[in-house]
Amino acid sequence: MNLERILSEIRPVSEEWRNRAREHTAHLIMPPRALGRLHEVAERLCAIQRTLTPQVSHKGLFVMAGDHGVVEEGVSAYPQVVTGEMVRAFLRGGATINALARAVGAQVWVVDLGIVPALEPATLPGGAGFVVKKVAAGTGNIAKGPAMTREQAERAVVFGFEVVAERIRSESLELVGMGDMGIGNTTPSAAIAVALTGRSVEELVGMGSGVDAAGLTRKQRAVRRALERNRPDPQDALDVLSKVGGFEIGGIAGGFLAAACHGVPAMLDGFIATAGALIAQGLCPSVTQYLFAAHGSAEGGHRFMLEKLGEEPLLSLDMRLGEGTGAALAMSLVDAAARVMREVLTFEQAGVTEG
Amino acid sequence: MNLERILSEIRPVSEEWRNRAREHTAHLIMPPRALGRLHEVAERLCAIQRTLTPQVSHKGLFVMAGDHGVVEEGVSAYPQVVTGEMVRAFLRGGATINALARAVGAQVWVVDLGIVPALEPATLPGGAGFVVKKVAAGTGNIAKGPAMTREQAERAVVFGFEVVAERIRSESLELVGMGDMGIGNTTPSAAIAVALTGRSVEELVGMGSGVDAAGLTRKQRAVRRALERNRPDPQDALDVLSKVGGFEIGGIAGGFLAAACHGVPAMLDGFIATAGALIAQGLCPSVTQYLFAAHGSAEGGHRFMLEKLGEEPLLSLDMRLGEGTGAALAMSLVDAAARVMREVLTFEQAGVTEG
Repeated sequence: MNLERILSEIRPVSEEWRNRAREHTAHLIMPPRALGRLHEVAERLCAIQRTLTPQVSHKGLFVMAGDHGVVEEGVSAYPQVVTGEMVRAFLRGGATINALARAVGAQVWVVDLGIVPALEPATLPGGAGFVVKKVAAGTGNIAKGPAMTREQAERAVVFGFEVVAERIRSESLELVGMGDMGIGNTTPSAAIAVALTGRSVEELVGMGSGVDAAGLTRKQRAVRRALERNRPDPQDALDVLSKVGGFEIGGIAGGFLAAACHGVPAMLDGFIATAGALIAQGLCPSVTQYLFAAHGSAEGGHRFMLEKLGEEPLLSLDMRLGEGTGAALAMSLVDAAARVMREVLTFEQAGVTEG
Repeated sequence: MNLERILSEIRPVSEEWRNRAREHTAHLIMPPRALGRLHEVAERLCAIQRTLTPQVSHKGLFVMAGDHGVVEEGVSAYPQVVTGEMVRAFLRGGATINALARAVGAQVWVVDLGIVPALEPATLPGGAGFVVKKVAAGTGNIAKGPAMTREQAERAVVFGFEVVAERIRSESLELVGMGDMGIGNTTPSAAIAVALTGRSVEELVGMGSGVDAAGLTRKQRAVRRALERNRPDPQDALDVLSKVGGFEIGGIAGGFLAAACHGVPAMLDGFIATAGALIAQGLCPSVTQYLFAAHGSAEGGHRFMLEKLGEEPLLSLDMRLGEGTGAALAMSLVDAAARVMREVLTFEQAGVTEG
């Protein structure tokens, strides 16, 4: 696939089906709009899937993984080796994303878009599937130069697209979520967010996985330098991704494009996945119609990114883990919303008197 | 069972297990406290179940049903007949609570604590179980006199206790939720809340299932009259329940006592279930340690009731349906929290480098 072709195939969701869903909802045995935001979720599912009986039984979570040259600026509380170690934990089924995915009955795939180590696929029972689509073994240090070439950026997006599109088709996925693994990746995510939201470095750089005050200062400096040195063009999302992004962030953007392209609803996760969504939005604005904001991250800048996407989070539990954990958790709410459309009787069907 | 005996058997949750759980959490492969409030849920589960591997696989939802004499004051948007009609819908499996219960794998029981019609148990496949524990066929009009006698209030609580306790034992329930059905029941719930929180009628009376401005005025007047006429004693929860409560609200209080008594975590639902929890708290303050606030209702006064219980809601989706729907929805979050404790590896187990 090439990117131009992908973008040309994304169409808006159906306002007609959304209206039909609203009309149907009005007849269900409950006071008007008594399920609040759950109705909006349900009706958007109908608009996306073009049906009154949305289905989200087959769920898939994609943990896009990549490493980051900017870690040499001292921006993370963890050493780079942890990226690969966590990927192994996913493949064993022993990380948080595995546990939360089992809770909602979702399959998990880890996609190596560009981690430093060369890991062999070795999934244990109950673990994540492993897909190697490596663009390169880690990005360049964005505080000193571009993260990657424009060609690599496009490749990261297309790789993410292909992996998700293939599994949507082969596993009949009806709901997908994008997560991330990559030590240091709140730094490029913040840089992307500054470039694309116009908010300040102070608003968008946070503690990430837990740096101290000195680390926070180093992160802010790294983001400031990355933007000054690389001058990403906010009108050109691929330029932003290549200058200050990451391979897994490109893969996440591509995953969202794949969902939109196939008419499949997609869950955002936290800070990094939302940076990927901002890239996807820059490439194709209507992609946001397919996205549900799973949760509001404890990372403060996340709310400005969601604002730019026009999304309100379903959950606010002060989580800041990534991996797709917020996406997994909120899938249960989307599942419930779909069931309301499919399973709740109307006043007429149930013989209940209307108010 | 008598109430005094029940209350004497409730013990506080285990601070020792909570501390052990916190200690264990610190070793899981994630940044410190990266799951935010989900950790608090997980650790409270450990404190309740006295284990590091909490289990909430067997889930039960109890929809306590009753009718209300105060409907003759014009306090509801729906006629009283809807209570029985909705009970039939639950038994068919066609209401929102049935759909959301299926989404989280919970069983549903409807308990007739005092609805007007005499319904025969007739559960269809996929529907709710039906338990008849009728105190009386509807309460008195609280705007004119007491809802019920003190003996009836005690009976409602004990009936609720017995139904939930029996099913905790026979079905090995590890997580329960209390919901409600009863046309007009936001009015007694608001009266209970005014009596027990000390907040004003204006703060606690809301639109319920959807009354208009004139209906809201009638509700406020009814609550004011109920409190003036009956003078419930805020130091005596059973007095409050008997003067301005409802049979299903007593049943809900009893259900929470049963959960606490058996060391089982329990989900609050919305406005009415939380009124039941206030009664339970009045009877036995340590019962609140077993409760999780599922969601913040769109009914504005709900937040004052949660405040009195010392609880913060897990979800805020502007729902205002009752039936236990909020409790059902949030069960998925509690399930996820339990899995984190049971299934996520430690840094040492996973061979991941600590930060």
